[in-house]
This record gives sequence, structure tokens and C-alpha cells, in this order.
Amino acid sequence: MTAERWLAKFAAALAKNDIDGAAALFAPGGFWRDLVAFTWTIKTFEGRAEVKAMLAAVLSNARPSGWTIRGAPSSDETWFTFETAVGRGLGHLRLREGRAWTLLTTLQELKGFEEKAGRTREWGTEHGVLPERKSWLEKKIDRGNALLSGERQPYVLIVGGGQGGIALAARLKRLEVPALVVEQNERAGDSWRKRYKSLCLHDPVWYDHMPYIPFPDHWPVFSPKDRIGDWLEMYVKVMDLDYWTSTKCVHAAFDEAKQLWDVELNREGRLLSVKPTHLVLATGMSGMPNMPQIPGAESFKGRLVHSSTHPGGEGWRGKRCVVLGSNNSAHDIAADLWEHGAEEVTMIQRSPTVVVRSEMLMEHAWGKLYSQAALEAGISTELADLTLAATPFRLLPQMQKPVYEEIRKRDAELYAGLDRAGFRTHFGEDSSGLHSIYLRRGAGYYIDVGASQMIIDGRIKLEHGTIDRLSENAVVFSGGKELQADLLVCATGYGSMNGWAAKLISKEVADKVGKCWGLGSDTKYDPGPWVGELRNMWKPTQQPNLWFHGGNLMQSRHYSLYLALQLKARLEGIPAPVYYLDPVHHLE
Amino acid sequence: MTAERWLAKFAAALAKNDIDGAAALFAPGGFWRDLVAFTWTIKTFEGRAEVKAMLAAVLSNARPSGWTIRGAPSSDETWFTFETAVGRGLGHLRLREGRAWTLLTTLQELKGFEEKAGRTREWGTEHGVLPERKSWLEKKIDRGNALLSGERQPYVLIVGGGQGGIALAARLKRLEVPALVVEQNERAGDSWRKRYKSLCLHDPVWYDHMPYIPFPDHWPVFSPKDRIGDWLEMYVKVMDLDYWTSTKCVHAAFDEAKQLWDVELNREGRLLSVKPTHLVLATGMSGMPNMPQIPGAESFKGRLVHSSTHPGGEGWRGKRCVVLGSNNSAHDIAADLWEHGAEEVTMIQRSPTVVVRSEMLMEHAWGKLYSQAALEAGISTELADLTLAATPFRLLPQMQKPVYEEIRKRDAELYAGLDRAGFRTHFGEDSSGLHSIYLRRGAGYYIDVGASQMIIDGRIKLEHGTIDRLSENAVVFSGGKELQADLLVCATGYGSMNGWAAKLISKEVADKVGKCWGLGSDTKYDPGPWVGELRNMWKPTQQPNLWFHGGNLMQSRHYSLYLALQLKARLEGIPAPVYYLDPVHHLE
Repeated sequence: MTAERWLAKFAAALAKNDIDGAAALFAPGGFWRDLVAFTWTIKTFEGRAEVKAMLAAVLSNARPSGWTIRGAPSSDETWFTFETAVGRGLGHLRLREGRAWTLLTTLQELKGFEEKAGRTREWGTEHGVLPERKSWLEKKIDRGNALLSGERQPYVLIVGGGQGGIALAARLKRLEVPALVVEQNERAGDSWRKRYKSLCLHDPVWYDHMPYIPFPDHWPVFSPKDRIGDWLEMYVKVMDLDYWTSTKCVHAAFDEAKQLWDVELNREGRLLSVKPTHLVLATGMSGMPNMPQIPGAESFKGRLVHSSTHPGGEGWRGKRCVVLGSNNSAHDIAADLWEHGAEEVTMIQRSPTVVVRSEMLMEHAWGKLYSQAALEAGISTELADLTLAATPFRLLPQMQKPVYEEIRKRDAELYAGLDRAGFRTHFGEDSSGLHSIYLRRGAGYYIDVGASQMIIDGRIKLEHGTIDRLSENAVVFSGGKELQADLLVCATGYGSMNGWAAKLISKEVADKVGKCWGLGSDTKYDPGPWVGELRNMWKPTQQPNLWFHGGNLMQSRHYSLYLALQLKARLEGIPAPVYYLDPVHHLE
Repeated sequence: MTAERWLAKFAAALAKNDIDGAAALFAPGGFWRDLVAFTWTIKTFEGRAEVKAMLAAVLSNARPSGWTIRGAPSSDETWFTFETAVGRGLGHLRLREGRAWTLLTTLQELKGFEEKAGRTREWGTEHGVLPERKSWLEKKIDRGNALLSGERQPYVLIVGGGQGGIALAARLKRLEVPALVVEQNERAGDSWRKRYKSLCLHDPVWYDHMPYIPFPDHWPVFSPKDRIGDWLEMYVKVMDLDYWTSTKCVHAAFDEAKQLWDVELNREGRLLSVKPTHLVLATGMSGMPNMPQIPGAESFKGRLVHSSTHPGGEGWRGKRCVVLGSNNSAHDIAADLWEHGAEEVTMIQRSPTVVVRSEMLMEHAWGKLYSQAALEAGISTELADLTLAATPFRLLPQMQKPVYEEIRKRDAELYAGLDRAGFRTHFGEDSSGLHSIYLRRGAGYYIDVGASQMIIDGRIKLEHGTIDRLSENAVVFSGGKELQADLLVCATGYGSMNGWAAKLISKEVADKVGKCWGLGSDTKYDPGPWVGELRNMWKPTQQPNLWFHGGNLMQSRHYSLYLALQLKARLEGIPAPVYYLDPVHHLE
């Protein structure tokens, strides 16, 4: 059966409510990944039974129709468009022996609430005679004042104004959903600017575009942090977002009776209360810094900082520096300290690291979707995002393994060198590499841009083991070994995003929602059971009207669409029955 | 002869230096417009004799080759690419009866000095070990300091940081030509922000993109001035331009011996000297405000301002307001005063105005090249610009006349109404409409967005005649008639750009260069002889190393490319022999 024929049969089965017939079109182990179109959540269904159960619940509401091949289908793969009762969608189908191996359905817009763009964009000026006409600027100022005085309430409050919060706010702006972003820093983009000086994005530019305004084509492959900061700052401005800087979220509580959040903000020292209907935590998928409690810290005469507040290598010339941790930040910080003339730089590795050279990732992992070559082959950013989304997370490891086998061969010398130096590498428990560990843990890897060679050469020294305590001037390991230190940077990562829920809302709500991120892969730091999607991200949670948004630039860009559509549907009273909520996982 | 065949014959003739043969391929009245590719200036050659003379002078340097059809040619029209000894070009050909009726040749890039974009973009970070590595931000700060201290000199100094200066600086940045923009306002974009409150662009968004970063597709059709201001400000930032705000150019003198400009700047009150090789005046194609000297002005108790400094209608409720002039600004200002409740608004018309409704322009004038429909038909902004450039200015009036005949019919009621109200309209001396008068005078028109109806309705009153003097509280006309006035706004336009040359450099240099803008159409305000291109714009002038840049957003975008390439060639020592300099026209 060709893809075209399959789609016709599938459409016919759904049209006549033939759920068994529709499910029978799937291979026994086939997958259906739905991004909000059918289920009003983000969920992958594995096997016919799950597909059937879902269809039985949602079909009468979804009422899909208009299934149409888009582009030129190959015999066993195609893109297609479709409609539901309330929206328009885009999907992808892969066949195996005539049955659906993977099906993706995504909601792209809501009927009657399309973004105003192209032919439907605003006119900008009103021709004719309008007494007391207000200019765009006056209206903008009025709007800002009304928000500040509380006269106007945001429908959505987004806590955190990094790329995640900004991308979501931009989509909500285009969808005409009143939203306010609060950012604790003084300027949009500071969440990047304030990180260590040498930081550049580890993902290439093609992966990093914001929605609607792509980087110009001279933008560097790996963007320096301050440049991304500037880009985000201008983006906030020209997208005309309601964005309050120097504003901290102090506390939020959900008023069940009013179905509103009661949020206390501290804006430039002044306490303000806002009452949004929805609260989005976009405080960074990494959550709050994990700072280890090390005995003796108070007597340590050197400097002790978490990587998130380490400004850079300047000022450490001639000093002995220790970096705890062996992932991205640890490597960048160690290399930067060495380049700034530190007397001695030692990295303490606690567990094996997935190391992949940046060039290998470009060539073997991102290249097909996110590269100049891909772009020239007609793969737009949107198409790349959807292509990536079309592979269920269950299938990723097996697809990634050969990639990493190839990388291990190509960079055999690097891995052998690291091995000789005592640096422990792996490609994850199942050898599926970087993308897998990112989805499972959001950490555990180093995209090598040069520091691995410094470890091999011994310019960055290496220690293993557990820190027992700090003395006045040294790190003391469990075995008693002492390492002189003027600086200890703890590149020890971040907690789960629901740590923010605990801090800003309550322990009860954080526990009710459970951990964010992770797939339930039953690997270290990502215990089962399998859930098949990132927990709690971009979809309804166990706490009504609370949402989590975040991730890297690609995720912030792509998934903000689905989150924005969910919020728009609620604003407009469009029925959005949620098929499924993730059960709560390992409470903290 | 088909376009393909013509191009082959033309290429062969040029390859063997057969100038007569090449010229014979043109229709007797045929045109060749060259934008920098062959002549290192901007010039249209009319008829075979001019083509021959030009080829005889430039062919041995240009050495064109590689003429290749681009896209699908029609039988008598085609796009093509070609090379010269030093660059790559793009051209357009229209045949009539097998001979060239119009030929356009444009330089697009210099070999070996291509803009770094797409595959050749910067890496952004340097992988590996670099002791004392500096971050992007540190390098940027160092660069800024070196410029400020005079340690580093800009190769090009651009005076004026509106859309013209910014677009040119962006192109120079991508071409790695060190350039500094100085802008007298406090913020980039203020040249728009500071104008009257109700101002929106009169050209639609598709016409207004800056190079490299197009507006997102929700950007309004007619952009409010403050929004354009914000866009330009962000553009300066993310294009990473060297741009000094609050900086006035005090004086510039060309040092013949050193072949450098000696420029005195006032930067935030501090005098600085810079020594650029090239000086670009991008102070607005409109030059300095024309403020009429009206007897009695000193005793007038009302407010007297030029339109460029009139902030808007607020505060004039119940007052009697007079606007001198009847072009775009006059209409916008009068309507805005009325909308803000002025007791009486009177426009003084001194000469007939080209009035066209904005909707008519969109439909009949811009629509084919600059509209959503054009974009969807595959006409990119660049292609639209080149298509516009492919029509020699000599042919424009005859092509425009039928457009305006149609508009006159379609809007017969509007024109009859204006006539009844005593408002005098015309479509130019030869009825060729708005685009012609813009090229000839840069003024003389109103793109109607509603004020014409207010004149018809009598909400905006009308006077004609010459102001004799101002009394304490009235405008007094030559005939003795008095018009009570609390406010007189002189929407009396701007002088030629070489007024800036006189002010900033010297009367001698301004006289040597002559008037800017205008085609020599032998119409009012644009006396002959015919020159066929805008005088002194974007090309070498009689004053070595002095350039004029400006115009609307389209011109700033498109012609900045050719000016940037001319400057780049000079920086790199690429031979750029200038075939022709405009003779000086009607000195001021």
C-alpha cells in the first residue's frame, strides 16, 4: 500500500468512526505521536491497543477530515495536512510493509484564530478621520500602564524571560493572547550574558532560530553568548512583547474558586500582584542550580561558586583552580581558566561523560536537518523541526546507535587519548549517544570544542573521587588526598524544573506535578516506567493552569507553538478536552 | 532573435572587442543601464552612439565573460548573470524586434571579496586552545575603544544614521569595510521617532525591508514611525555596527596630500577628530529643512515651526492652526490637528499637488512588485528591486501615464471633490504621476490616507496665495486677507543634499559637486539638461572621496549595495576606473 492509499483508507475509517479499522492500519508495533491535534496534549501511542483507546476517547470531538498529501510522497513516506473540528494540522507518515510504522499529527492553527500574517497582517494605520486617534506608541504606552496598574490582567504570566519565555510570548502575541513575561535580570538576554565569558552556543545556528525572525545568513555558526543576548533583547523589542525586566516572581497560588493565579511580583523593588489565568514556568529546563553542600566550605579561603555564577577565567592567572564536574560547562570553564593563565586547572570527574566533537555532531547528527546543506536542499527550519518530531522517542536510541558507532570509529584517536588520560567516556548505557542522554537527563555530555585535547595533553589535570571536605586552601578527597585550590567551581548542574514550582508555588503543587523532563527510559537519573514524552513539558500537568516551558533553542521554538495553541484555545473557549495527564513521577 | 540568442551574440561580440557589433545589437533608441558593473558609476546610455563610446572606454578593463541565462527566459526578456575581470553581475534584457530595447547590468559582488554568508559565515567560536583568548564581547569593546581613541580609523565615515546610513553600514560590515556611522540623535531610529506623532510610512511593508533582516510577516502594511524607529535601533545592534549616537559632524575637510578626510565630530559634547578615507553624507535625501523667512515672525505670538520639528496635534485643542504647504507632511499634520480637536485647521496651498490614494498606489503602482501577491508569485524583494532598476528613467513617464489615467478614472469622485473644494491637483507636467515627481523633485505629492476627504468636507479649510507677513496673531496674505493663527506649521520641504555639503564641508565643495537628486527632466524644480540618473546619488562625485546616499527605504536598501561595492573596491585596491562624472548642475 502506498502512503497516498494508506492515508485515504485511514481518513475513510476515521470518517465512519471505524476505530478498529483505523487501528488495523498500524503495524502491530506502530506509533502515533500526537502534538495537541487529537489529544490536546503531547503523547505518543505505541501499538494498536493504545491507538484504539485514544481514538475511542477523542474521535467524536476531533472529527478529523480533509486529509491531503503535501508535496511529493515517496512510496512509504509522506507529509500531509488535515483538519479537526477546530483546527488545521500537519502530519507525517512512515509505512512499513503497507502499515503505519510511525504517524505524526500536529496542530498548526485554530480555525478562525489564525495568526495575522502575510495577507492578513495589520494595516498599521487607519486611513480616514478618527477624532482623538492614538498613535501606535501611545497605545503601547497605555497598554503598558494598564498592565502596571492592574487595570489590565495578562491571561498568561510567563515566569522567566530567556529564549523559552520569549519564544512563547512571541507566539502568544501573534495569537492575540494577552501575556506578560517577567524576567529577574535587568535586560532581556542577560540569562546568556551573565554566564561564563567564553560560552558560545554548542548547537549550530540552523538549530537556533527564534520563531518569525530568523538570524540573518551571516550569523555565526556557534553564536557567542553576548550576541545571543543582544538578539533576544532586540527580539523582545521588535516583537513588541509585554516584558518586565528586573522583576522576580515572589509567590504564586492558584485560586480554585476564581480559577485564577494570585501572583506576587517584585518589580524593581516594588511589590505588585497580578492575576493571570495561566502560569507558565519558563525558568530554564535546567531548574535551579545544584550546589553541593561541602563540609568546611565556610573555612575555605579560596572562592567557591556554582558554574552559573562563575564569570570567567579572568583574574585567575597564576592561581590553582578546580572544577567539579565533567560536562559542558565544566569543560568550557576549565579551558577558559587555562587560557587565562591559571597555574593549575584540575577537573574532578565523578561519572563518565558522553563526549562528542562538535564537528562530528554537525556532520553526523544535525547535518541532515540543521545545516546550510539541508537549507539549500529545501529543508526549512519548520520542516526540520517537524521531521525531528516525526520520530517517536522510543525509536531514537536504535537510530542513534549506528551514528555513534561511526563517530567512535572516526574519532578513535580522541577516545583512546581520553582513555589514556584517565577520562572516562561512554555513549550512555545503551550507547545511543548525546541526543538520548539530553532527553533523559538534560545533562551528562560534553560537545567537544577543544578541551578534550587539553585533558589528553595534561593541560587540564584530572581527578576522580568524592570530595570529603574543604580545608582552608585545599579540596580534600575521601581518600585523604589534598588538592590545593584558590578556586572551586561547582559545575554540578541543575535540578528539575519542578524545583521552581516548589519554590514559587508550594511543595504540594510541586509534588502533585512531579518531576519535569525525562522519558522514563529506566536509565541512570531517568527511572521508569516509560512515558515516551518529556514529562510535564509544554502540555497540561496535574496542576490545572500550570505549564512548563523550556529546553534548548530548537525546543523553545518548536514546542512553543503547541503550548501557545493550547493557551489560545482556552482563552477563546474552544473545547480542548485533554485525553491524558502524565502520572506523577518520583517526587522530590 | 530570442533573448538567449541575443545574449550569446552580445557575449561573442564583447569577447572579440567588436564594439560596433555589440552596439548594433541594440535598437536604435535602445538603453543600457549600468549599475557599477562596467562603468564604476551609475549611468544609463541612450542609443548606440553612447553605448559605443562607453564600451570603447571600459571594455578592456571590464573584460566581461560567462554570460548565462538565469531562470526561464521568455522570447524577448530574460535575467542573466555575467562576470567582469573583478566581479560577478546580474542583468536583465528586454528585446524589441530582436534588438535590445533595454539592457541592465549590475555588479553584485567582487571576486575574492564575497560577503561571508551561508556556507562561508564565521564559525563564531574558535575551537582549540588559545591562550588569552578574547570573547566576542571583549573584542567588540576593544574595537569600540580603539575607534574612540583614534587608534583605529574608519575607512568610511557615514554622516547620518537613518535608514540610508544604516543600510550602507550593514553592507559595509558584511564586506568587512571599516565604517563608522555618526548620528546626532540620542538613539538610532530617532530620525523617525521625532517626527509628528501620526506619521506612518506611506509606502507598504514589502517596499521597506532593510537588507539581510526582512521584517517578519506580521509587520503592518504601513509601519507607524515609532515602530520603524525601534526596528532600526535593533538593526544597528544586531548587525553589530559601529554607530555613535549623540554625535554631530561639525566640519569636514579633504586633505588632498594625504587623501584623507579630516573630520571634526562632537560626541556627547566632546570634540573628536577622525580621519576616514571616504565621507558619505547620508543626512536624508531631503537635505536641510526649508524654513521660509516670513516678515513679522518675531512679533508673532503663536507658535511657528517647520514640519520637521512639529511634534503632533496634541495641545492644540480649540486653537486655530495653519499649515503652509500641501504635500504629504502638510496633509498628515493638518488631519492630525483636526483629530486632536483644533478649532480651525487651514492648509495654504501654493502650487498643485499630485494626490493619489494609498489604495490606488498599492493596486496599480507597487502591487506588481511589492505586495503579498508579488511575494507569493516568487518575486523576492531583491528581484523586485532589480526589476524596477531594469526600466531606464527615460521610459518611466510613458509607462506611468496609463496607470494614472486609470487612477483618475477610478477615483474620479475624489478628484472632482477636491476640485470643488478648490484644492488643485495634477499628475505632473506630463501627467506621469507620483513616481516621476518623486524622482524629479523628491516632493510635490500626497499619498492620500484620508485627509483629502477632510478637505472635500471642509473640515480642513483651504487658502491659496502668498503669505505677506505675520501679525501678532494672524497670517496676513499679500492681498491683505488675515487668517487668525495660534500655530503656523511650515510644511515647506527640504533643500538639496548638497546643502549639507556646504554646511559640513564648504561652499566650494558644495558648488563643485552641484545639486543632488533630480533627473534633468526639464520640468519645474528639475531643470535640464537630461542626465538620466539621480544626480550625485550613490556614485562618484566631482569631489573625490565624497559620496551621497539616501532616499526612501527601497532606495536605501538597493542602492547601498552599489555604493558599498564601490567603497570595497577602493579599500582593496581593485581597479575601479570611473567612466563618467555628472557635470555640475545649477549651483546653489
